[in-house]
Amino acid sequence: MKKLNTQVVIIGSGPAGLLLGQLLYKAGIEHVLLEQRSAEYVAARIRAGILEQVSVDLLHLAGVDQHLKQQGLPHSGIEILSHGTKYRIDLSALTQGKQVTVYGQTEVTKDLMQARQQEQLSSFYEAQNVQIHDFDNAPKVTFDYQGEQYQIDCEFIAGCDGYHGVSRASIPQERIQTFEKVYPFGWLGLLADVPPVADELIYVQSERGFALCSMRSNTRSRYYLQVPLTDKVENWSDEQFWEELKRRLDPESREKLVTGASLEKSIAPLRSFVTEPMRLGKLFLAGDAAHIVPPTGAKGLNLAASDIAYLASALIEYYQHGSEQGIEQYSEKCLQRVWKAERFSWWMTNLLHDFEGDTAFEKKLKQAELNYVLGSEAGQATLAENYVGLPCEVEHLQQLFAEGNCQKAS
Amino acid sequence: MKKLNTQVVIIGSGPAGLLLGQLLYKAGIEHVLLEQRSAEYVAARIRAGILEQVSVDLLHLAGVDQHLKQQGLPHSGIEILSHGTKYRIDLSALTQGKQVTVYGQTEVTKDLMQARQQEQLSSFYEAQNVQIHDFDNAPKVTFDYQGEQYQIDCEFIAGCDGYHGVSRASIPQERIQTFEKVYPFGWLGLLADVPPVADELIYVQSERGFALCSMRSNTRSRYYLQVPLTDKVENWSDEQFWEELKRRLDPESREKLVTGASLEKSIAPLRSFVTEPMRLGKLFLAGDAAHIVPPTGAKGLNLAASDIAYLASALIEYYQHGSEQGIEQYSEKCLQRVWKAERFSWWMTNLLHDFEGDTAFEKKLKQAELNYVLGSEAGQATLAENYVGLPCEVEHLQQLFAEGNCQKAS
Repeated sequence: MKKLNTQVVIIGSGPAGLLLGQLLYKAGIEHVLLEQRSAEYVAARIRAGILEQVSVDLLHLAGVDQHLKQQGLPHSGIEILSHGTKYRIDLSALTQGKQVTVYGQTEVTKDLMQARQQEQLSSFYEAQNVQIHDFDNAPKVTFDYQGEQYQIDCEFIAGCDGYHGVSRASIPQERIQTFEKVYPFGWLGLLADVPPVADELIYVQSERGFALCSMRSNTRSRYYLQVPLTDKVENWSDEQFWEELKRRLDPESREKLVTGASLEKSIAPLRSFVTEPMRLGKLFLAGDAAHIVPPTGAKGLNLAASDIAYLASALIEYYQHGSEQGIEQYSEKCLQRVWKAERFSWWMTNLLHDFEGDTAFEKKLKQAELNYVLGSEAGQATLAENYVGLPCEVEHLQQLFAEGNCQKAS
Repeated sequence: MKKLNTQVVIIGSGPAGLLLGQLLYKAGIEHVLLEQRSAEYVAARIRAGILEQVSVDLLHLAGVDQHLKQQGLPHSGIEILSHGTKYRIDLSALTQGKQVTVYGQTEVTKDLMQARQQEQLSSFYEAQNVQIHDFDNAPKVTFDYQGEQYQIDCEFIAGCDGYHGVSRASIPQERIQTFEKVYPFGWLGLLADVPPVADELIYVQSERGFALCSMRSNTRSRYYLQVPLTDKVENWSDEQFWEELKRRLDPESREKLVTGASLEKSIAPLRSFVTEPMRLGKLFLAGDAAHIVPPTGAKGLNLAASDIAYLASALIEYYQHGSEQGIEQYSEKCLQRVWKAERFSWWMTNLLHDFEGDTAFEKKLKQAELNYVLGSEAGQATLAENYVGLPCEVEHLQQLFAEGNCQKAS
């Protein structure tokens, strides 16, 4: 068995793990990254595409925002099409100038992996049989890599390996509480190299169900349709997808829609899920390993980024100042923001989708809520401030970086 | 059988019917009012106590606001106590100066009945066996009064006789749609001649359930406790009521609370209910005859008043200008405002009460929503603008009155 040691083992090479790795590296904290899948697989996954300012700031702090700056599309508003009437939510006007940036998670991942490779940071892709040991006292992680057994002794473990990962699964059930809601429908997504139907995203509430017109760039579009959970992607030809999307759009958008062959097509279930606490001893959970949101509202990737802001701060404070305060408060701080994002994601999902099980009263109530929100400046402001992202302590992390006194600063 | 005729028969002598009578009288439109109960019974009922500005304006327009002006208590804020932490919602600051007025519905009813008596407007209290006929074409109402049968031929019928009244019950089921939600708890209310615990209302969310510290004046308080629907008022001595209330309050309020003998104590169920449409032919439904809200948010009386604003406008336009537009639009205009108030009342009820059937996820989500709303200015503004009352066309009615060209103006 090969033995290694480091300060932090990061499990999972999604945006959470990669971003944490980059921030720790910048702060001079040693880490090793483990990923069960191949680098190629990770880089190819199609995911979300809307970044809050907090996420953009974090990527800047990590020094990985060159492409983002060049290719990211700042959006100052979104559109909501409710039963044929289009409303624009002026995000910037309603939030004192804040905005979101359209930039695919796939691109974020690639940028972070490239930076990681350039700095030759220690990574084990296709690590098999990853196991976490003794996270309360003397944490270590064992795994198999290219036919050999490895053991890494470390001071902390960052579990960034998603909902199905080993990190949360390693915690005895009696030590965590989980909260969950499953929705009775999924999103059928289609990616195509066609220009987006509009400059801004369109969230569509229609009698035929929800739809979303999104994009990755000015030449690549991402569209979604609410479908029953029982549906299969094989049932949907590209042509059927475009036809159904058109039926849910307003005449103007229907006219403008440019269709084309799909690059990818898949059905994702919608789920709300939270684990409490998010730290157990020296094991931290971050991102999807700790919580899942339905994609309405685009909070998943951003919540992973804000977890990492708290986690990077906590670790830098510990290694720079010997303070355990950030570590102690990690779970509580994350969860406050997580639950608000869970609330918002549930709320947008709830208002814009068709729920078969709703009573007539509930349907009316939801429509009244949407009508109220769209017709009230205060109502629109609640939507806008949640959409651009609630405050996070990114300034604190910036301050820690500005102090520049990392022990092993590069 | 005694035969009468008039322009409008008003069924029900609650605030809706009485206010409509006064406005029609002022506008010179003839009406007769029928009430199944005695005048003494009606005047003694204990009901709500918070008036929106729209309701205050309507009472002014009806010329029945002398006592209200003297004794009403303007409130520019409310307090929300959430698990021991008190938040003030500055209604006025959040709504460009709007406020609510504390003034008991019992007082509103007395004022309106007194004005009615002074003008000797035609009223039949203790009218029995009230029946509505042919409301589509040639409406008439029959009833028994002091041993004699009566028939009133009229042009319109205003059904202001509440949830259990004859008006909605006279409509064939296939011509209306109803929407309903029943809540799994009730409010145990206690009225006492003790000074209120605080200058403003306190809405209390606690682990033991919801409570409300309300008032009717500076010397008369109204308190409520969330209780199971199965509970009986006989199970609650005054002392037990005060003890339970104290347990749900914060230490400061507990200290300040002045207790005393109850003048009244009762349990009311909580219900959301809407009828669509609110007009059928020449029969209008208004107030509780058409819709019920749970009392959280104090919308019941105010919604009855805004229905009457639309209805009085419609009838004055018809008799003054021969326009049927207001009549045609009555139902739709009312329902737009009704559904928003239903939404708000459901929402406040939902957030502040303990629902036994909630999943752990739902409980967490509600707490996150409340935390978000209380911690966000936009969130607080949505609460405030709904609490003080969404816009209603009271200006339109004021304009009609200002034109002063009623045929039989007094």
